[in-house]
Amino acid sequence: MKKSLGVKPYLFPMPVFVLGTYNDDGTPDLMTMAWGGLCDYTMVALNLDEGHRTSDNIKKRKAFTLAIADCAHIKEADFAGLVSANDDPKKFEKTGLHAVKSDKVDAPVFEEFPFTMECTAAELQHTIAGFRVIGNIENILADERILDAEGNVNVQALDAAIFDAAHPAYYHLGEKAADAFSCGKSLEKK
Amino acid sequence: MKKSLGVKPYLFPMPVFVLGTYNDDGTPDLMTMAWGGLCDYTMVALNLDEGHRTSDNIKKRKAFTLAIADCAHIKEADFAGLVSANDDPKKFEKTGLHAVKSDKVDAPVFEEFPFTMECTAAELQHTIAGFRVIGNIENILADERILDAEGNVNVQALDAAIFDAAHPAYYHLGEKAADAFSCGKSLEKK
Repeated sequence: MKKSLGVKPYLFPMPVFVLGTYNDDGTPDLMTMAWGGLCDYTMVALNLDEGHRTSDNIKKRKAFTLAIADCAHIKEADFAGLVSANDDPKKFEKTGLHAVKSDKVDAPVFEEFPFTMECTAAELQHTIAGFRVIGNIENILADERILDAEGNVNVQALDAAIFDAAHPAYYHLGEKAADAFSCGKSLEKK
Repeated sequence: MKKSLGVKPYLFPMPVFVLGTYNDDGTPDLMTMAWGGLCDYTMVALNLDEGHRTSDNIKKRKAFTLAIADCAHIKEADFAGLVSANDDPKKFEKTGLHAVKSDKVDAPVFEEFPFTMECTAAELQHTIAGFRVIGNIENILADERILDAEGNVNVQALDAAIFDAAHPAYYHLGEKAADAFSCGKSLEKK
């Protein structure tokens, strides 16, 4: 039996991404977001509110980093989503995170997060859904401990936070269910 | 120690969404995608290749459904990502899924998936990242068994497939790690 829920901003799974940018004075800023992700093989899309400090910083520096928040640092990521840098100039310091300048783009890399995309802003759009940043992925940085012998990400080691907006919470990843591009092949024969 | 991975279409977690549309002759079509999600409180964005039958169908009917693939039906969703309706006219029949017409939009609802958005196409865009559909969420349909007493989605009951592109696989959800908009509050006092 299906029930109508009306119109809600709900999908699952949703990610927890931490955006890193530089303020006018060169200090690092960060914010957490869930509405975005890959939009092409080499590009990401961020659906942001234009009022964020991050949006201003991206407009000016044409660069940002996008880190996957892992469960070990979910407190820092949650804080970066709760507090606006426009209200609290000490936002970054309060996280206790460490920032280093990216080698590739004009944006900070937060050392604690195990997976970070270094991106340039390819296009800034004003759409019917609001402000959208399309970023070129210039490089990915990953902690060695989350990589397998072939240099691919091991998702169990990554331990990315998975966001549930219905009962606002972050989850760990569970067990493998099936192989992709594979488990459906049996239906081809039908 | 951080390693450079270069430019890869990798982020985590990624969703498994099954798009439902009607073909010219009124038969249902479906395809599976991972590059999309919420872009506003009442809107979703789909980053598609324009060559898909689904893209044609959305252009003509200005409507689609977006279902979350659950692990119980991951074989069907995987198949819908492997096979193109342009190559196999029996694609939908081979899945064994059951389609009923949405009450709200001109698109099919697949009964087996526990969570489905009924959407109208609000805008079709050609961007530097390719073809993009912005959809208005007109309603959400959810199986009663995935809802709690307040009518909210219970993510453990939903059992959405979580896609890992590095070692292509689908995962179950794991344990709760922390409360969102909450666990970071302790850092405010610092």
